[in-house]
This record gives sequence, structure tokens and C-alpha cells, in this order.
Amino acid sequence: MLDVERLRADFPILSRQVNGRPLVYLDNGASAQKPQCVIDAITTAYSHEYANVHRGLHTLSTIATEKYEAVRGIVARFLNAASEDEIVFTSGTTEGINLISYAWAAPRLQAGDEIVLSIMEHHANIVPWHFLRERQGVVLKWVECDANGDLDPQAVLDAIGPRTKLVAVTQMSNVLGTVVDVAAICRGAREKGVPVMVDGSQGAVHMPVDVQAIGCDFYAITGHKLYGPSGSGAIYIRRDRMDEMRPFLGGGDMIREVTREAVSYAEPPMRFEAGTPGIVQQIGMGVALEYLMDIGMDRIAAHERVLRDYARDRLAGLNWLNVQGNSAGKGAIFSFTLSGAAHAHDISTVLDKKGVAVRAGTHCAMPLMSHMGVGATCRASFAMYNTTAEVDALVEALEFCHDLFG
Amino acid sequence: MLDVERLRADFPILSRQVNGRPLVYLDNGASAQKPQCVIDAITTAYSHEYANVHRGLHTLSTIATEKYEAVRGIVARFLNAASEDEIVFTSGTTEGINLISYAWAAPRLQAGDEIVLSIMEHHANIVPWHFLRERQGVVLKWVECDANGDLDPQAVLDAIGPRTKLVAVTQMSNVLGTVVDVAAICRGAREKGVPVMVDGSQGAVHMPVDVQAIGCDFYAITGHKLYGPSGSGAIYIRRDRMDEMRPFLGGGDMIREVTREAVSYAEPPMRFEAGTPGIVQQIGMGVALEYLMDIGMDRIAAHERVLRDYARDRLAGLNWLNVQGNSAGKGAIFSFTLSGAAHAHDISTVLDKKGVAVRAGTHCAMPLMSHMGVGATCRASFAMYNTTAEVDALVEALEFCHDLFG
Repeated sequence: MLDVERLRADFPILSRQVNGRPLVYLDNGASAQKPQCVIDAITTAYSHEYANVHRGLHTLSTIATEKYEAVRGIVARFLNAASEDEIVFTSGTTEGINLISYAWAAPRLQAGDEIVLSIMEHHANIVPWHFLRERQGVVLKWVECDANGDLDPQAVLDAIGPRTKLVAVTQMSNVLGTVVDVAAICRGAREKGVPVMVDGSQGAVHMPVDVQAIGCDFYAITGHKLYGPSGSGAIYIRRDRMDEMRPFLGGGDMIREVTREAVSYAEPPMRFEAGTPGIVQQIGMGVALEYLMDIGMDRIAAHERVLRDYARDRLAGLNWLNVQGNSAGKGAIFSFTLSGAAHAHDISTVLDKKGVAVRAGTHCAMPLMSHMGVGATCRASFAMYNTTAEVDALVEALEFCHDLFG
Repeated sequence: MLDVERLRADFPILSRQVNGRPLVYLDNGASAQKPQCVIDAITTAYSHEYANVHRGLHTLSTIATEKYEAVRGIVARFLNAASEDEIVFTSGTTEGINLISYAWAAPRLQAGDEIVLSIMEHHANIVPWHFLRERQGVVLKWVECDANGDLDPQAVLDAIGPRTKLVAVTQMSNVLGTVVDVAAICRGAREKGVPVMVDGSQGAVHMPVDVQAIGCDFYAITGHKLYGPSGSGAIYIRRDRMDEMRPFLGGGDMIREVTREAVSYAEPPMRFEAGTPGIVQQIGMGVALEYLMDIGMDRIAAHERVLRDYARDRLAGLNWLNVQGNSAGKGAIFSFTLSGAAHAHDISTVLDKKGVAVRAGTHCAMPLMSHMGVGATCRASFAMYNTTAEVDALVEALEFCHDLFG
């Protein structure tokens, strides 16, 4: 099992207090905290080893380039991609999915072509497709989850029609915690010749990921949820899909030659990375992923299952609490409302007084919220460094809240 | 005058050695080094004050949001924008110019419409316009500089025809150091009703910038050249131009409402910022800009003029050295080749052995290199923390190089 206390010591922020109470950080679905090794990597890079990458031959540029480019291989290993050339660096999942929308989908999809997506998608995996609807008449087809929050892979496959050009689906709902069987979706979609974009923003944080076993065409991750720096990220693009893409952002590094009359492009993955990249963030993300792989994603998942089961039991004991989503295999993410008039924002504010950080709102998932029949909710989202004692702290704070508003 | 020695003490990397020699960092045109206050801001953010911004109500999210959003005002002050609502955060100039290309130009420009740009542009201010040429038949019209590297503002204005929809021009050449009179260009272009995009990647680093006095419509900056973190940046967009733009990246934060059928968008500037932003990088950029404003951009410019004049004199004494660009008011950037067979990459490697970091290549400015009749060159680019002693070190290393290859 995970030695959680030892793990927690790696995260300086976890020892701070909030409002005179020990911080209970349960907003990991929005962004995770950073271990000291990531912070140190950033400090070291800027204090001793910084220069721009790729186009320099001097010592500092060479060091920075080597450290930066090594991250491509780390990401490939983390996702079990066949080659590091299938990894494109991004500033996060949002940029990654927009890259696929602009560079792969926009030039290929015609009016009336369809994109199938689940009702559980985050706005990052919705709005880029809405752009295609607005701008070129692409049709969005929605597949609903059931009352438990489960998504039947077969329902997704059944939604695929002759005009379907893409399936866009999350591996884990950021609201309900539902884990989607993306491998089954990819298997069926491939039989029908339809590529699949998997949003791995949450999934990659909480379970081992193998993009080859999943069989997806695109898999996006975001570094800041993976205990890495803000502004870091990557997307896996299967090699044959890269050949179908045109460039997205234009600028330095992604070109072969530029003249007044013409431009030719570098080979992938560089073709899709323009300008000075997020050098130090990506180096930091590499350190975070190594840190996760050293711990072992299996062990992280096992610990988080313990947290989930304990939290599920304890929250079930609060009969004035309504939890959205109860899929058997869900992750340790709990979206909830309180019976009565208390607004999610007020609940969040009261919990904060007790040192408990949760998020309140619609969690960038308005279609799902509407489908579940809720407006704003609170969301407690757990990470590998959380403890069952913190579940108790959450429950205690919720009881205080219930007394206050009840 | 600037107390350069005191300034240098703020930059930890400047005290390191390279190949047994004190580092002489003259690759600032590619990226600048970071002062301790910026590094400390990053460490503090991740160690004590980190959470995702905007959609959280708990203490850490509130602190992070306040620090992050305060940077908008800092950038507005740095550029003298009329309002911080005219500042859009980006990951750097490349993303900023692509934003204008995709969100403003692409939906407005028709086949045969023209974009006027100078031959001195960086690929970041070329390739996004080449996309419009490739994809929708937009015509690129090039304005040349003279042999000294001077660009006549009137020549730019003369290139504007009835089909011209945009002028895209740098404020300072990253190869020649030429400072372009962008105010004169904007004045004339406005009379003709043509908006101007100014690439401030270099300009904003080396002189005071006042976007209202310049009268530009768009002004892009990149944090990593401004002594801030990699992956940080912003673009000034005059308020009326924002109303002409459609969204660029889709995702969280930039929406008002998302349903299955439709999407509506947040007000600018948020409309143009999708997903979790580069929170800590932007906070770091804010600290860097405050640091620069505390020193005073006028004083920085004065110090760099001294460096330029001294370097110009000393390099002129090397009759086997060919410097490209000799505009009277140029910045302290020197691109050069050596007479004889030595390749720029070899020169750069030899200089590095002496601890002198310069860049070699085509500096993301291939059309300019072709216009000047050179292939790869070396480029020594100075910053506020450089000294005349470092000019001497460069000259000494060049003489060693000349002896070696001569």
C-alpha cells in the first residue's frame, strides 16, 4: 500500500493551514498540488540551466533542449505510446483538443457530418466541436449516461451512423467520477472506421493508461492535474492520424523553410509545436510523471479506491446529502448538493472556514448538470495524497454546514 | 545610470560558469534569464498559494485568482493600455499572433485580400499569414528594408492598397536590431482604415512601450523574453477590435452557457482565454514586469544604448567580421558572419568554449536572411544585465575564433 504520510511530506502546501485549520485539499479535479521535486526542477532550470531550446548550440541551450526533449519519451512511457514521435506538447488538454479540432477535424468534416460525444464531457471536449457546428454545419450527437452516471459503451457505438466522423469521450467524468470503458468504445468504433478522441484529463491521473491497449486515436492529458506545473500538457496522436492533420499554430520551430511565396513544414510531432514552448513547465511535467511512475499508478489507483469506498460509505450516512453519480467503478470524485435552500457556493464557503477546499459551480459540464437535473453543485475530488481522516474532516464540515443552514 | 552589478546579482544563473569560464550570456533575443524575484514567485505560488483560478471559492483558489488576475492590470500598465480588459493572456507571442489570425483575420479576409508585412518579420509573424494564403487565397505583400536594415515607414504605407486588410510589422528586428517607427506606420494606416498588428516580442524588452501613443490595434508580447517564465505572454487588443473577433480556443472559462444545441460566450477578454490558464507563469510574468518598471524602461534603454555603441565600435574594429544591419537607432543585437569558410554553427560552438553564449542559424527569419544574402549567422543579443566587459569577452572569443579558422 501507499505510505500516504510519507507522500504528503513531499507536498509543501499540504502542511499549511487555511483559516486556522489544517488544509484539507479536495479540489484535485480542478488542479493538483505539486511535489517538492517538481518545484525544485523548476527552480533548478531557471537558476542554473535555462535557455531557449532547439535552435541553440551553446551549453545552456543544449542542456535545456535535452531536458525538455526527454519529456517526450517520459510521456510516451507514461501513456505506453508506441513512439515518442506520437507525443505533441501542448499547454494542456484544452489546447490539445482544439489542436485536433482545428488541425484534423475542421479541414475534413463537411456540413451534416457527425461527432458523437457523451453527455458527461467537460466543456473542453464540447466547445471545440460546437465551433465546427457553428462554422461548418457539423452535427453533434449526444449519448446520455443513466441515473447512476454509467455510460454504456454500446450506446455510444449505436450512435455512430454513416456520417459519423469522430467520437469524443472522456475516460473519467470530472463531475460524477464515472470511468468510461473507452477501450470498448475504441474497439467498436474502429470496426466502423471512426476515430476516437479520449479526454484523459482526469483518467490519466487516477489509473494506469495504455493508449495502445485502449486503441484510441487521440488521448489528451494536462500536466497541472498530474501534479505538474500549470501550462503543461501533451496529446498522444496515433502516427497515421498525424499524417491527416494540417498545421495548427504557425511560427518558429514547426517549419522547414519559409520564403515570401511559400512555407513548408517540419515533420511531426514538431509540425504541431510552434514558437518557444513551455520549456520549464514541460520539464516539470516530466518530473511529475516520473514521480507518479515511481510510486506506481496501480498503487495510486488502489489507494484512491480505498478513499472512494470510505467516502461513499460516510457520505451515504448523511441523509440530507444528495450525491450525483454512483457508478460502481467510479473514481474518488463526489459531486453533491444539500437538501434545502443552501446554495453550493455558500456550502463551499462554509467548508473553507473549516479548512476544506472543494469546488462549487457547474464544473465546466453544463450539459451534464442539465441532464442530471441540478444547477450548481459542490464537488470534493480526491488525489493520491488524501486520507480517510480527510474524508472525516469533510463529513464533519458538512455536518456543521447542515446544522448552519438546516 | 543602471547599477548593472547590483542588477546582475538578482539573476542566479549569471554567476555560473560554462566550460570553466564565467557565463557571458548573449542569447537574450531567444530568451532572457530570470531574476530571483520571479523564481521566488513561482516557488511561493506552488508551495503555499496554489489552486485553479476563477471557478473556486475556497481560500487557495481566491488567492491564486487574485494574484493571477492582477497581472492583467500590470500588463496594461506596462503597455499603457486604456483598460486591462484589452489584455488577453497567451502562452507567448506565437499564440497571440495566431489568435489574431484565427479569430480576427480568418473570418474576415477573402481571396485576393492583402496583408502587408515587412521582410524583417519573425516566422511567428509570417507563418500564421501564410496559413491564410494557403487556405483562403490571401495575398502577402512584402516591404523590404535597405542595406543598413532601415525600414521606411512610408514604404509600408505605400504598399497599402484597396485590398489591404492588415499590416503586420515588428517593432524591433530580432536579427538586425532595427527599431521600426511603428507609430508612423499606425498613423498612416489608420488614415487608410487598415489595422496594424505589432510584434512586440523584442521591442517591449528594450524600450518603453505605449500602445495608445503607438496607435496599434494589436500588440503581442512574450513573457520569457521579458525576464519572465516560459509559457507566459499577453496580447493587447484594442477594444473595438475585440468586438470583431470570434472565439479561438474553445473550452472552460470562455463560455457563458453551453447546452447540447448551442454555446454562448463570455465577454472579452475572457472570451479569448480557454481552459485552465498558465496560472503560475502569468503570475511570474507579472513579477517580471513590475521588476522592469521598478528599474525603469528608460534607464534600461539608456544602458543598452551604451552597450550597443560600445559593441558597434569594437566589432567594427574586426575587419574580418561582417555585421548585418547598421541602422543608427538599432538595439543591441548583432548578427554577423566571419569572412572565410567558418560556419556560424562552428563559430557558436567555439565561442561557447569561451563561455560566450550566442545563437547560430537563421533566427526564425528566413525571408530576411535571404533578402540580406546570408545563410546562417551568429547573433549576439544583449540584455539589461550585460556589460561592456562582456562585449570585450565576445570580441576576445571572436579573435580566438578568427585565429582558429583563419
